[in-house]
Amino acid sequence: MKDQPLILITNDDGVQAAGIQALFRSLRSLGRVVMVAPTRDNSAVSHALTMNRPLRVHTLEKDVHTMDGTPTDCVTIGMNKLLPRYPDLLVSGINAGANLGDDISYSGTVSAAIEATMYGVPAMAVSLAGEPPFDFSVAASVAWKQAAMTLDFGLPENTLLNVNVPQLPAAEIRGTRFTRQGRRLYRDAIQEIRDPWGRKHYWIGGGTVHWSEDEETDEFAIRQGYISVTPIHLDLTNHEGLAYLRSRWKM
Amino acid sequence: MKDQPLILITNDDGVQAAGIQALFRSLRSLGRVVMVAPTRDNSAVSHALTMNRPLRVHTLEKDVHTMDGTPTDCVTIGMNKLLPRYPDLLVSGINAGANLGDDISYSGTVSAAIEATMYGVPAMAVSLAGEPPFDFSVAASVAWKQAAMTLDFGLPENTLLNVNVPQLPAAEIRGTRFTRQGRRLYRDAIQEIRDPWGRKHYWIGGGTVHWSEDEETDEFAIRQGYISVTPIHLDLTNHEGLAYLRSRWKM
Repeated sequence: MKDQPLILITNDDGVQAAGIQALFRSLRSLGRVVMVAPTRDNSAVSHALTMNRPLRVHTLEKDVHTMDGTPTDCVTIGMNKLLPRYPDLLVSGINAGANLGDDISYSGTVSAAIEATMYGVPAMAVSLAGEPPFDFSVAASVAWKQAAMTLDFGLPENTLLNVNVPQLPAAEIRGTRFTRQGRRLYRDAIQEIRDPWGRKHYWIGGGTVHWSEDEETDEFAIRQGYISVTPIHLDLTNHEGLAYLRSRWKM
Repeated sequence: MKDQPLILITNDDGVQAAGIQALFRSLRSLGRVVMVAPTRDNSAVSHALTMNRPLRVHTLEKDVHTMDGTPTDCVTIGMNKLLPRYPDLLVSGINAGANLGDDISYSGTVSAAIEATMYGVPAMAVSLAGEPPFDFSVAASVAWKQAAMTLDFGLPENTLLNVNVPQLPAAEIRGTRFTRQGRRLYRDAIQEIRDPWGRKHYWIGGGTVHWSEDEETDEFAIRQGYISVTPIHLDLTNHEGLAYLRSRWKM
């Protein structure tokens, strides 16, 4: 008899976040689920690894651990130190807010899935595309289905799934689309403010977002009411660009 | 008469680092060079953006600015607030140590170049592959040449260059290779230590590195004494994986 699947979950909103709690409950029917999540909110830490100080793990209850680190810390320590073996699947999320287009390069949620993929573990990031108040119930069902599919069929090599779920009632979701990463550009996304002594400071945030117009993208799918599933791979090489440079640049 | 090129430089080792100082001196014959660099060492912050607090810019001298933020903060504030227009080129570095293979996903040096690329600005990351004591003189010449080529010929769309220079005397460098990103896996890269009260902590770092055996990679080129130039693109989509999932997964 085959052992039951071992599933590691983490997030970047912190161990107390409603999104990871919903994920924990949802995935338990698929196997043993172990949560290793940051103590605090780590939004926009990207793929940071904490290497300048030691990390202490606190076990809150059976299979629920937390540390004062980043999502990537949680994955590497979880997989290499806390679990009895590498997991069959890593699921990161459910993030409170979308991870679409170029933004995934900043995303702690996606980075956690990248880290697991580096170790050869199938991985996915799941995000709820919407605004507060968040209701994770539909996204938790979607995560369950995607996790079950991944456990059954596996993923392409060196590739993770970036899953975004529109915040709509289940009956209004139009289906699932396999998409590619969109392009976005922020405009006026830095605010100028003054401190109490009148000195200028910059605060990054706000502004307006512009998206590329392309019906194949993650962002378009979400806007149309579909679940978006984008396969993301670790090889960042522009292979076409490589051929171009080799032919054009004389070194 | 065309304006002289405007070049923004940053790094993740901090404004005082010898690598960025060498870069600053080297690139000045190509145009106006403006430095916007973090006050402190930001190694392994990856693509983090500081959004939870305001950032104050200190101008140390003409065209030399610093802020207590990340390399990505420096690029976005530098390009959007400090420069008179978007620069013709962003160069990040020279990093004290290699940025090869999967490690670039953690690299603040490379992330700064990714940020500029998102805004449509040609960009490159330059790293010195070696151990302390570092001598940046050869790498600074390489950066000058790559910068001049990029200003002349441009880069493929949505693509930056990841340049690594072996720490060898100029006469011993065997040439330049256009490469692809290698794969690396760390083993035993988490140490277990005890605090003064005997409690177990984990410290990420150390261990041994294993590389994929592939002569096309950045890591192989460096090991053979070549300069490695890898075109990195922003689209993380695994397009082959997309076709695979569409054909195999029934959603």
